[in-house]
Amino acid sequence: MKKGGDKIYKVVFIRHGESIWNKENRFTGWTDVGLTENGVKEAHFAGQLLKQNQFGFDVAFTSVLTRAIMTYNSIATELNGHYVPVHKHWRLNERHYGALQGLNKAETAAKHGEAKVLEWRRSYDIPPPPLEDNDERHPKLDPRYAGLPQDVLPKTESLKLTVDRVLPFWYDQICPAILDGQRVIVAAHGNSLRAIVKHLSGMSDAEIIKYNIPTACPLVYEFDQNLKPLKNYYLLDEKTLKERMQAVANQGKAH
Amino acid sequence: MKKGGDKIYKVVFIRHGESIWNKENRFTGWTDVGLTENGVKEAHFAGQLLKQNQFGFDVAFTSVLTRAIMTYNSIATELNGHYVPVHKHWRLNERHYGALQGLNKAETAAKHGEAKVLEWRRSYDIPPPPLEDNDERHPKLDPRYAGLPQDVLPKTESLKLTVDRVLPFWYDQICPAILDGQRVIVAAHGNSLRAIVKHLSGMSDAEIIKYNIPTACPLVYEFDQNLKPLKNYYLLDEKTLKERMQAVANQGKAH
Repeated sequence: MKKGGDKIYKVVFIRHGESIWNKENRFTGWTDVGLTENGVKEAHFAGQLLKQNQFGFDVAFTSVLTRAIMTYNSIATELNGHYVPVHKHWRLNERHYGALQGLNKAETAAKHGEAKVLEWRRSYDIPPPPLEDNDERHPKLDPRYAGLPQDVLPKTESLKLTVDRVLPFWYDQICPAILDGQRVIVAAHGNSLRAIVKHLSGMSDAEIIKYNIPTACPLVYEFDQNLKPLKNYYLLDEKTLKERMQAVANQGKAH
Repeated sequence: MKKGGDKIYKVVFIRHGESIWNKENRFTGWTDVGLTENGVKEAHFAGQLLKQNQFGFDVAFTSVLTRAIMTYNSIATELNGHYVPVHKHWRLNERHYGALQGLNKAETAAKHGEAKVLEWRRSYDIPPPPLEDNDERHPKLDPRYAGLPQDVLPKTESLKLTVDRVLPFWYDQICPAILDGQRVIVAAHGNSLRAIVKHLSGMSDAEIIKYNIPTACPLVYEFDQNLKPLKNYYLLDEKTLKERMQAVANQGKAH
């Protein structure tokens, strides 16, 4: 971090490491699955990268899903930063995958056709089929959402709907912390981070659906005093970065 | 937990598991040391005890010291409760041990005499020698206290001084959460928990210095609607409980 002189406004985004259902190739969404051993290792490696690059944090924001919080905790361990305040919020959750949650991606692709699955996964505004009100996977049954009115809880989401619910949290909670000069980290998910990156980079709907955020790789954005992005970069070498992006892009294929 | 009917007001206290300096038999105080592998195991076991006894939590309070936060995180893992909000505050820190911090207890006892060390450890209102203002162990140099005015940061503490700084946090932050009907856990330290227990149980100065809170053993207090304690109990069998209390009582002897 720059010491003294002009303030630098920046934020670090981190997508969680490999989860149990990533490995099983299942649609996860709001299902609360933990990290695999490999996912924990990825997260520790991300923490080491941050440490090598002299990053430290004053505040952390995570979703309320265990895999994002575990990822952040591993980073905090590497940075000796367990004392840092952590704000956990449902608006940073992964995109809700509706009735597809829990289904195997390859099986779903084989059944509905790879084209249909790619449409659900990669269209900007077409949500998968919603959960029924009496579905046991409905978020209203999960104690972590007990304080929320039921009508705000998604039963399915397109990426567009995800953007709509993530950005209020970005504007109201994360931006003020950055503008306050705090060193901020956001540990979240492929699509909740896409929502923010789309906004920051001014990507079109078509561009963002092709943009894959690699797992457990610190993504740094630097801003001017109006939170206009000046530059962004990953703390990872090009080769590893490409491998991780390709790994994410390959998910959902019926192979 | 009781479902429906009258509200039950309760809180669970947990002292952190074995830390690296517990094992090395050094005065720790505000020094930020992690848990040993055994300490992590103790914490997971505490989480399993809580789970077996149907405990869950709506909010957690910890000190800003890694060993308390790690203990809580292991419990959260066992309870699938990583989403629960955690408030970390310096007022729940361990008693500050002044210039003794970092010294080996047995060596200190051999040098100053076991009686003197016992006086520092077990008297109610005699603090150990304070840190000098230019001591590199001074809390003003630690970024986790950067937001606090220097005059509130201790350079040494007796148990009495620890009580004085812990109770405002108990009254202002923890009590309102309990009275709100939230299920509360407090992960902290031998002496910061003694401070609260002394207050709740109405122990005399002489009684509290002889009372040893065992490590990583959930201690439950139940209250009426005025936060008058109705009963308290440990979630651990008598035999293990006694062994742990004795282990703590033995610390600081020059053997």
